[in-house]
Amino acid sequence: MTVYTAPINETRFVLKHVIGIERYSHLTGYDALDEDSLTAVLDGVGRFAAEVLAPLNQIGDANGCVRKSDGSVTTPPGFKDAYTRWADAGWTALEAASEYGGMGLPKIVSTAVSEYVLSANQAFETYSGLTIAAAAAVRVSASHALKSLFLPKMTTGQWSGTMNLTEPHCGTDLGLIQTKAVPASDGTFRITGTKIFITAGEHDLTENIVHLVLARLPDAPAGTRGISLFLVPKFIPDEAGNPGQRNSLSCGSIEHKMGIRGSATCTMNYDGATGWLVGEPHRGLTAMFVMMNAARLGVGLQGLAQAEAAFQNAKAYALDRRQGRALTGPIEPDHSADLLIVHPDVRRMLMEAKAHTEGLRALCLWAALLVDISELAPDAAERGEAEDRLALLTPVIKAFGSDKGFETTVNCQQIWGGHGYMAENGMDQFVRDARIAMIYEGANGVQAMDLVGRKIGLRGGQTFANFLAEISALTAEASSDEALADMSAPLDRAVADLQAAAQWMHDAGVESPNHLGAGSTAFLQLFGIVTLGYMWLRMAKATTLAGGAGDHSPTFLAAKITTAQFYAAHMLPETAGLRAKVEAGADLIMALTPDEF
Amino acid sequence: MTVYTAPINETRFVLKHVIGIERYSHLTGYDALDEDSLTAVLDGVGRFAAEVLAPLNQIGDANGCVRKSDGSVTTPPGFKDAYTRWADAGWTALEAASEYGGMGLPKIVSTAVSEYVLSANQAFETYSGLTIAAAAAVRVSASHALKSLFLPKMTTGQWSGTMNLTEPHCGTDLGLIQTKAVPASDGTFRITGTKIFITAGEHDLTENIVHLVLARLPDAPAGTRGISLFLVPKFIPDEAGNPGQRNSLSCGSIEHKMGIRGSATCTMNYDGATGWLVGEPHRGLTAMFVMMNAARLGVGLQGLAQAEAAFQNAKAYALDRRQGRALTGPIEPDHSADLLIVHPDVRRMLMEAKAHTEGLRALCLWAALLVDISELAPDAAERGEAEDRLALLTPVIKAFGSDKGFETTVNCQQIWGGHGYMAENGMDQFVRDARIAMIYEGANGVQAMDLVGRKIGLRGGQTFANFLAEISALTAEASSDEALADMSAPLDRAVADLQAAAQWMHDAGVESPNHLGAGSTAFLQLFGIVTLGYMWLRMAKATTLAGGAGDHSPTFLAAKITTAQFYAAHMLPETAGLRAKVEAGADLIMALTPDEF
Repeated sequence: MTVYTAPINETRFVLKHVIGIERYSHLTGYDALDEDSLTAVLDGVGRFAAEVLAPLNQIGDANGCVRKSDGSVTTPPGFKDAYTRWADAGWTALEAASEYGGMGLPKIVSTAVSEYVLSANQAFETYSGLTIAAAAAVRVSASHALKSLFLPKMTTGQWSGTMNLTEPHCGTDLGLIQTKAVPASDGTFRITGTKIFITAGEHDLTENIVHLVLARLPDAPAGTRGISLFLVPKFIPDEAGNPGQRNSLSCGSIEHKMGIRGSATCTMNYDGATGWLVGEPHRGLTAMFVMMNAARLGVGLQGLAQAEAAFQNAKAYALDRRQGRALTGPIEPDHSADLLIVHPDVRRMLMEAKAHTEGLRALCLWAALLVDISELAPDAAERGEAEDRLALLTPVIKAFGSDKGFETTVNCQQIWGGHGYMAENGMDQFVRDARIAMIYEGANGVQAMDLVGRKIGLRGGQTFANFLAEISALTAEASSDEALADMSAPLDRAVADLQAAAQWMHDAGVESPNHLGAGSTAFLQLFGIVTLGYMWLRMAKATTLAGGAGDHSPTFLAAKITTAQFYAAHMLPETAGLRAKVEAGADLIMALTPDEF
Repeated sequence: MTVYTAPINETRFVLKHVIGIERYSHLTGYDALDEDSLTAVLDGVGRFAAEVLAPLNQIGDANGCVRKSDGSVTTPPGFKDAYTRWADAGWTALEAASEYGGMGLPKIVSTAVSEYVLSANQAFETYSGLTIAAAAAVRVSASHALKSLFLPKMTTGQWSGTMNLTEPHCGTDLGLIQTKAVPASDGTFRITGTKIFITAGEHDLTENIVHLVLARLPDAPAGTRGISLFLVPKFIPDEAGNPGQRNSLSCGSIEHKMGIRGSATCTMNYDGATGWLVGEPHRGLTAMFVMMNAARLGVGLQGLAQAEAAFQNAKAYALDRRQGRALTGPIEPDHSADLLIVHPDVRRMLMEAKAHTEGLRALCLWAALLVDISELAPDAAERGEAEDRLALLTPVIKAFGSDKGFETTVNCQQIWGGHGYMAENGMDQFVRDARIAMIYEGANGVQAMDLVGRKIGLRGGQTFANFLAEISALTAEASSDEALADMSAPLDRAVADLQAAAQWMHDAGVESPNHLGAGSTAFLQLFGIVTLGYMWLRMAKATTLAGGAGDHSPTFLAAKITTAQFYAAHMLPETAGLRAKVEAGADLIMALTPDEF
């Protein structure tokens, strides 16, 4: 049995001292974020995650979902009951708009508690996570009638939602989509085609499922500019808005996967199913991208969440298992052996896990703040700046978050030794569940290409330059602060590596775009390390403030500073090698003919 | 269904041109390694692996082993038939001593073909791999009577073998072993205790199972110097040497694991079982270490083998799947999309896979040569030097081989996108199977500690210094060769990083041994990168020779040079960051108190 406790204290430290949410009272929703209401949400979801969802995590993995011959899908034992309790408690409505019955809490709060749910049970989260994402797309792009009909029930969690993009022959390359949408005389459309890898495409948790489906109209231009978005419910709502006639769609099969086995991954067959157009014809990808960008941030959060869960269990094991003696001589001579935690290499893995989980948490919550500012700030310039910053960071958070999340789960499994390889201990599930985050919502290589091909050049490179300038301003300030000085110089060096790598790419890209592609992953990793270094310097600085506030223990604050120093000394030096990889260019990577491989 | 073809051409390149086995005709067995007999073994095992074992790999994973209530264990469908064919073909006898019916082929040949078996079906290999290791320990340490009784049937594969070290409370820390051995009046011993994680502890492939068990005699001193080794067969041989009375031992349960599910991992209960002492009392660990060092080399080979299998399947997918367009414009405009292989980041992952598999193959075969020299060379000085070199390289091959093997399987799975996460495609099995190699036979952190704590200081540091000197001699030679010059300088820089890191550790270790532990993993990785860089420079140099011999195509040789250049330009620069990690020392890693984590 794995252990899990929501790291509420860590979340509060970031919200209060690193981000300082009280400085954002000009944003709707932030004004109401007083200590008590924030505590109620963090504690409430945190307790639900730890007490109800975490105990179902291994059960979900062991049992998976089952598709019956009639096409219905049963979720693992306990999921339906937990989902009902989850919806009844009102947690599905956290970030939903208040006009449709939601609590209208800002993204920063829903992100904070999503982490807990994902740590406790990533497979379970997919059902309500997809619903929230689908509801957001409907809210932004659908007609008033569709919104009134579908959003209230998606908000309560009575109905769930899905995203239907992938087809057997295309995942990344959505221009190849073949699913067809033919207009009917009543203003609806008949959708026909096959979609694969549809998360929560069919299940027994809700009375209806609202599919958002990308398809082509008869007059659609080829490629990505000929794709429209349709809302296709499993049951067509009747006059009273209740589930009525069964639509012509079905789950043809479910996948057997490496992980997130409690999440039903379906092949969905649309056989002239009735759907409604969402947004404008041929502009479906734009509407869908609202969901996809949010989803990418959510996937970065999954990396953090699995890392956090694995870290808690590795820590518990290192403080319980006795094996060998400290290199400096027995620490507890009365015991047959010392605790694992005495071994420097075990501690190294724990420190890396600590540095990455806490760093990624700060990053994910900061990104959530940017989402809120980009949507809620009264000032257009403030909104625009946040939007650009977010666009720059999104591929980094998705890919670096999931890469480091996976790496952390592997290290934490390693601490368990052979016992970590045995299914009953649950450490391997963290690894297997974390693995998907590197793949879906745009594989990490696609994120890297997005970063170097589009995001670095955003606003003529100004967005990127502003980000680096902000970091440099902090290092300059830190260099004269005794408590922070030793973190300042390493971060400056890392920023210089990032800047040089970007410049190299900029110049070499003129010669061939392959130089951008070849170095894209190394560049993204370099960017991620710098960004986490920035988060750690901000956290180190925040300890001063938090110390004064007295709401975190001296132990907590001392550990924060030590971990910040660890990140600077042990992680930041990786940037030199990554810069060299970027500057090695594309020639040797592109040289072999296919038959030479 | 995954694909697999034994990379015989690659093996031959290393054996003939990189290692030059014809230069070792002074070693027993090498003199008989003419072209024809070598071809017969490589082709024979390669074909068996591809045609019989690879098709059972996913079946083994899906079905696993089953323990019945009577304690018997059934291997996956097809395993028994394949094992019988494997033994009937004589492949179990490859490296066994000829006096016991073996073919007596040198380690270099058995290593070459073991790779094929491991690539095709790692779980299957455990049954005969453990038998070979157990037989080696018996041959080295057991009495003549035991050898005569057990070795012939282990050679034919009629009987299999196991290693019993781990107990519930101890894996790494063998000093804690509690299993007891009490002398009986007939010269045998009664073994009582519980062993866990026993690979192939019980199964249906052979008529008898020969367990080698570590246990304590009544008068045993505490710790590792009080452990003896016992041979404990499942059935006690009768007068005629056939399986007779059932011994008092049984399989209490089998594990459900992340991977290698076709391999039975058993809890073994010894309940006063009859055993024979192997070697001297209290010297069991020494006897067992014969097996363990060989096993560690074998585990490095497993990393290579899973990487190779995953690489072949990633390559096939990249040359078949169409998605997106080349950054430089459509390569095949008549198709709806270009092949995956046009994308630089996909190629980067393929190049890394190619560089690591081919580099690790050269390294593993070189290590096998060192095993042969250390055992077979007529000259004691030559034997001793090879033994020291091997001792230095063993932890590196085990840990770096399994780390890079795992990393490669993850990258190759990534090339498959979402399809790589689906069990039916088999890519996730490579990842899950590769994962164990980082854990068993001494977790990789234990290997790193062995390297920095013992091996670097071997012979007062001379063994390590000699190795670096050998590399530097080659770079000096290469620097004046036009074809090799651009690989020489990066390797020199990497060697300098390794040397500096070693010197730093040497100095800092005086202050505290924690500095050794804290940097041990970074140091091992740095050592591994340098060693693979050395292998690549040797391979690059060997292309000249091979070109002249005309037995490899110009395409093959051109790819070799390009990959060598890729390794130098894209992989070697990682050493700077690793050196910085070593030199960051232990302070920040050891700083937190347990409750600060």
